[in-house]
This record gives sequence, C-alpha cells and structure tokens, in this order.
Amino acid sequence: MSSSSRAVARLSRVAGHIATSKPSTRLSSSSAAAIKMTHTRKHKVAIIGSGNWGSAIAKILAENTKQHTDIFEPEVRMWVFEEDYQLPSSHAAYSESEHSKPRKLSELINQLHENVKYLPGVPLPENLVADPSILSAVKDASLLIFNVPHQFVSKICDQINGNILPYARAISCIKGVDVSHEGISLFSDVIGRKLGIYCGALSGANIASEVALEKFSETTIAYDPPGTLTPLPEEFPVINHALWKSLFHRPYFHVSMIHDVAGTSLGGALKNVIAIAAGFVDGKGWGDNAKAAVMRVGILEMRKFGLMFFDSCKSETFTEESCGVADLITSCAGGRNHKCAKLSVLQKRPIEEIENEVLNGQKLQGTLTAKEVNEFLKARGKEDDFPLMTIVHKILIGQAKVEDIPHVI
Amino acid sequence: MSSSSRAVARLSRVAGHIATSKPSTRLSSSSAAAIKMTHTRKHKVAIIGSGNWGSAIAKILAENTKQHTDIFEPEVRMWVFEEDYQLPSSHAAYSESEHSKPRKLSELINQLHENVKYLPGVPLPENLVADPSILSAVKDASLLIFNVPHQFVSKICDQINGNILPYARAISCIKGVDVSHEGISLFSDVIGRKLGIYCGALSGANIASEVALEKFSETTIAYDPPGTLTPLPEEFPVINHALWKSLFHRPYFHVSMIHDVAGTSLGGALKNVIAIAAGFVDGKGWGDNAKAAVMRVGILEMRKFGLMFFDSCKSETFTEESCGVADLITSCAGGRNHKCAKLSVLQKRPIEEIENEVLNGQKLQGTLTAKEVNEFLKARGKEDDFPLMTIVHKILIGQAKVEDIPHVI
Repeated sequence: MSSSSRAVARLSRVAGHIATSKPSTRLSSSSAAAIKMTHTRKHKVAIIGSGNWGSAIAKILAENTKQHTDIFEPEVRMWVFEEDYQLPSSHAAYSESEHSKPRKLSELINQLHENVKYLPGVPLPENLVADPSILSAVKDASLLIFNVPHQFVSKICDQINGNILPYARAISCIKGVDVSHEGISLFSDVIGRKLGIYCGALSGANIASEVALEKFSETTIAYDPPGTLTPLPEEFPVINHALWKSLFHRPYFHVSMIHDVAGTSLGGALKNVIAIAAGFVDGKGWGDNAKAAVMRVGILEMRKFGLMFFDSCKSETFTEESCGVADLITSCAGGRNHKCAKLSVLQKRPIEEIENEVLNGQKLQGTLTAKEVNEFLKARGKEDDFPLMTIVHKILIGQAKVEDIPHVI
Repeated sequence: MSSSSRAVARLSRVAGHIATSKPSTRLSSSSAAAIKMTHTRKHKVAIIGSGNWGSAIAKILAENTKQHTDIFEPEVRMWVFEEDYQLPSSHAAYSESEHSKPRKLSELINQLHENVKYLPGVPLPENLVADPSILSAVKDASLLIFNVPHQFVSKICDQINGNILPYARAISCIKGVDVSHEGISLFSDVIGRKLGIYCGALSGANIASEVALEKFSETTIAYDPPGTLTPLPEEFPVINHALWKSLFHRPYFHVSMIHDVAGTSLGGALKNVIAIAAGFVDGKGWGDNAKAAVMRVGILEMRKFGLMFFDSCKSETFTEESCGVADLITSCAGGRNHKCAKLSVLQKRPIEEIENEVLNGQKLQGTLTAKEVNEFLKARGKEDDFPLMTIVHKILIGQAKVEDIPHVI
C-alpha cells in the first residue's frame, strides 16, 4: 500500500469515526470502478477447506466471481479432503444406480452442487468446483482463501509451498489464534511465513449455518500487506480493500475492511473465554444486568490484551467491529461455550462432563483458550491485569467460585 | 473541578484506555481518604422519588450513608408522592388492628421498612426515611438525587426552587432525554437550570428489580460541573467523583465515574430504538448473527448522534461504558421494546396492539423515541445519516418493511 493511499485510508477512518456509522473503510463505487479499468488478466480464486464454514464461504466466493467477471475468473476451486460418503436414500437426488454405494465426496459435490456431508441442504453455485488434489486446487490461483481446522494449517502449507503463484495473496478464515506460554501466533502469519506471501484475516459474528442460509450478517476482513511482497504483475486488477470486498461482500454478508489483522484474529479466540464467564453468570440466574456487565468488561479486557501484546492492534477493532463486540454478543447469546458453562453451574457439575455430553467428543474452545491465555499471562507476570480472563480459568480449575466474579471486575 | 484535577482525570482516562479494563476514573483509596480528612460537616442526602427504580436507588444511598458516616449524615430522606395503600392481608407484617384499612404509603414504608407498593419484598435500610412533604425532604440536603417519572421533573423543580441549599449538587437517575423537533433537553440540564445548581446523570444496564435484589450490575455516573457554581462551604467534604462513588458504589452495584453527561443520558433513550430493531430481527428468526449486526450498527449510530449534536460527547461513553454498550445489550436481551417488536413481527400485528396487551396501558418508550428522534433529524435534514434509527421509525409507521433493514446498514 502506498503512503498516499495509507493517508487516504487513515483520513477515511478518522472521518468515519466522527461522521458515519458505516464501516470506516468501505470504499466508494468510484474506487471499485477504478479497479476494473486498467487490467487485462483476471484473478483466479481457490479455497482450501470444505467443512461447514469453508463451504459457506466457498458459496459466497463463487457467487461473487460469477457476478464480477470483469475482475475474477468465474470458476472457484475448492480443495476437498477426500473421503467416501454414502448419500442417504432420503436425499432428493438419490438414485439407486448411482448412489447405492459410498462415493467420493468431491464427486458428489460436483454432481449435486451441494456439500452433502458438511453443509447438507444448501445449493452451491455451479461455478464452484470441488477438487480432491490440493496442488491442482491452488494452481494458478492469485487469491487463496484458507478455511481449514487450525491443526492442519502447518501441514497444508508444507504441501503447497512452491506450488503457488509467488505473487498470490491470501485471507485466512480460520477462527482464533494459537496461544501458548511461549507466545501467540496468528494463523494468517503462519500461512504468510510458510508460503512467502501475505495473508490477511476474516472474522466476525458468523455462525456458519446462518451464513449458508443467507441470513443477514456482517464480517470484518483485515488486510494490511507490507511493501516488500513479490509484486503482482501489472496486468492483474490491484489487490486492495475494494477487491477483497468485491470477493466477499454479499447483500446478506456485509464486509467491513480494516487494517488490524491481530485484533481481528484475537477477538475470535478471546471471546470464547468471556462467553464462559457469561454462561456462568446466566447459570447463577444473576440476570441481564450482570451478564451485560461481564460482556462489557470482557470487551475491554480483550482490547487491553490486544493493545498490550500487539503494536498494530487498534482499540476500535474490539469496540466497534463485527470481529469484536458483535462476535462477542453472538457467542454470549447462544454459543457452545456459553451453553456448557451455564449448564455446568445449573447442574453443579464440572464443565468437562457437560462438554462430553453436549459436544459429542468435540472439545470446547473456550476452556482450552482460557488455559492457554492463562499460561501466556502467567509467564509474563500479567495475570492481575486481566482479572476476568484469569478468574474464568481459576473457576474452571476449581481455584475460584463464580461468586468471585463481581469482586474482580 | 480544578484544572489540575481535570488534568489528572484526563491522564487517568488515557492511561486507563491503554492499560486497564477497569472504569477509567475509579479513584484510588488514597483519594477517598483525602476526602475524609479536611471537613467538619457532613453531607445530607435526599432522594426525590420512590417508585421501583427510586426505591432501589434509595436503598443503595442509605446503605452507603450508614457505611460512610464520616462523609454523610446516615439519615436519607426519600420524598414519597403520598397515596393511600391497602396492605394485603397476605403480607407477613399484616395486623388486623393496624392494616384493616388503607394507610398512607409513607407511613407504611417507615413502619415496615419496605416500599410495599412499588418495591414489595425488598427490605429497606432503617436510616431511609419516607417523607410525604417534598420541602421537608430536601431541606438542608447538600446532595439531591432525582428519580421521578420524567413528566414530573419540571413541576417538582418549581415546587422546591428556593427551598434548597444554594450550594447543593444533584444527580439525575431519570432515564433518557427529552427529544422534540425543536431540540434535545437533558433532564439533568432542566433540573440544574430550574434550580440554579449543577446536576449530573446516572444511567446504566440497571433493571430496577435486579438491582433491588442485589444482583450484580454496573452503572455510569457522569459529573462535570462548571467552575461558576455557588461554592460549597469549606467545612463540607468536597463533592467530586470519589464522593459520588462513595455514595452510589456497592459490592453489587459498581460505579464508573465519567465526565460525559450528554452521552450518559442519550444512551438510555436511543437504545430503545435499537432494541426495537433487534426485536424485529428476532421476530423474523434471522438468528444471532443478524441481531449482533443490528446491535453493533446501533451502538455506532447512537455514538454518531451524540458526537454530531453534543460537543461534550465522547465516543467511548457509547462503546465502553455501562450506559452505552451494556445498557443496549440488556435492552436487546429482554427489554419490553425488544419483546413487543418481536411479537409484532411474529404475530403480524401492529406494535400498538401488542403494546396495549402486554404493557397494561403503559406506552412503549422506544416507539415514542423513534418518532421524536425522527422529527428531530428530519428538521435538520439528517435522516439519511442515521439509517437504522430512520428505518425503525419508517417500519413503525408502515412506510418500510423489516426486510429493508439489511439494505440500509
């Protein structure tokens, strides 16, 4: 990004802060027109991952590449971790001759235009092509979207390294961050470093099943590349905020573009710890005042965490963006962390027991993050600066009681 | 407030913004000690109003005056609008000889230490004295707390004008603001102007019945007096943020002191308009993503309104304080505006019909505020700058549909 366009973006942010409730870096239609006029090549889009959230995002990408054919190649390749799947005979498209035995998931997706295993019932655009070969999926793609379970990020990057365009740019839709006592890694940073490209981040109040059904929501995309990247050939439309917005924004999925990648990623991890606190309070029946108080203090602790440990973090990412305050609201309204914490108080049982019953063997993100964040803070002597996150961890390990929460906030 | 203490408060705010999640102007215990050492007289507290919210606040005041007898006279006078009340025979203290006929409400409160009509079941401190004479209630009070229905503010001020201490200071706990096409009045300003004293404001995520039951909550008190007031005699403890905090803060009712009176007051009015939007979205079943998006945009529109029309408004009052984001969260979780709006969509009936059934003749604050805010904005050509508040009003008057909400935000 040039210094002059940085200045414009900064001014636009300041003006937005004062004078508009719309996301501050929404670009005008004239900027969008400017992208489209000076290029002779189009961007090819690949998405790595095809789970519930991956398929919902893939659907959005393919809808937009079909709509903006002046910027994007219509076809979007989606890498599918191949597996055999037996189509249920109750499926409308079931035919005895074709589906009496398990078939490859990628074939079923391409035949039925539906991810029958991970996003059943949602029609996918025909220009979205499932590809079981990751190298084939990313070939010639100048825009790479990552949406895989976080434990696979590193291995997948090793697989495709050297097989992507050196001037590709990426967005990670992987929720959260990787915290340990050693430090915090952003998945976008891991991807960027491993592949030698730049990767931004998408996060927001986005329950995948609701997005897939085109229920209205908002999201935040953070993208702030350094000036030292392999340059994009001039024949391509420039990859900037307006371009990413053209790729992700839908009438039912509103995108706010910002620069704060760390803040955008942190919100998706830390909110789970706060949602556990809110669940505890709800379990006690302390009412809506108390829950709102915990959420308010939670937003401020999340922000404090970001500002303390990441130079690039911005206060408003937490207090104003979908990836901050809105995602927290959603998670405290009905997310699984909130639900399990509430049940553990109501039933006076350890949260692990509830987790095992309710989540079918999956692990709660919030309890793990509370532990990891606590190790990270303890290693830096900063537990006392984050009393709410600290007491959540202490309650989880039996060293404090829910009744202690009001005393520390 | 002196310029040096202003500077300290400002520095404390900046530091708090970066480094602490605690309310930014919480004063240290050493400041509290400083108040207590240099005076020979104590403050007398009066509360004007004894409804549900008035009685809950009166309970807090009396608990604190009894605890901090070095600063306050223990007795708190509460003005009660006198009426006859028949104690139900089911009441534990009912005696045939005393309660077979209706009695004066103020007498019952003083006999039973319970506001049997407006806050039944909640024991009130014995140092809280109900007084049916407003002139007697405010006599010699240096600290006046206003907590009456807003339509009575003006008349009550006329009644007590000239009968209060000229150096008294006040806090208004009256929710909201008075909006018309002519302008916006803060109730604290009306009180201050009519009585020739200074009045601050208290507002937050405070459902009265929950506060009365000592369920944990937070509130915001804004106090920013000019330097031109009738000086407080030197024998009194200085009236500053620490003093107000000593009067209102309880283990179950945490107080954050700020300077932004307009922002504190606006939140309590404008949130009702946003709660209607959230109720519409819930009625449509659009899910938690959509509701969080509407709430996020709502916070930013509330802030924009404050910053556009009040020079003294601060952004963070809306995004960080209990009177802003937390009060909005509470109102969108289960408040009456949210509830009636949701039911009106679910049952496809006008909100007025729901209002009549659910509220027993009371009027919804949010529909009235939406109309008043719209008149105010229209008179200034600013409707388009507040698309969410504007569309809520248009939906209410049948000129738009709930489905239009995502298109404008």
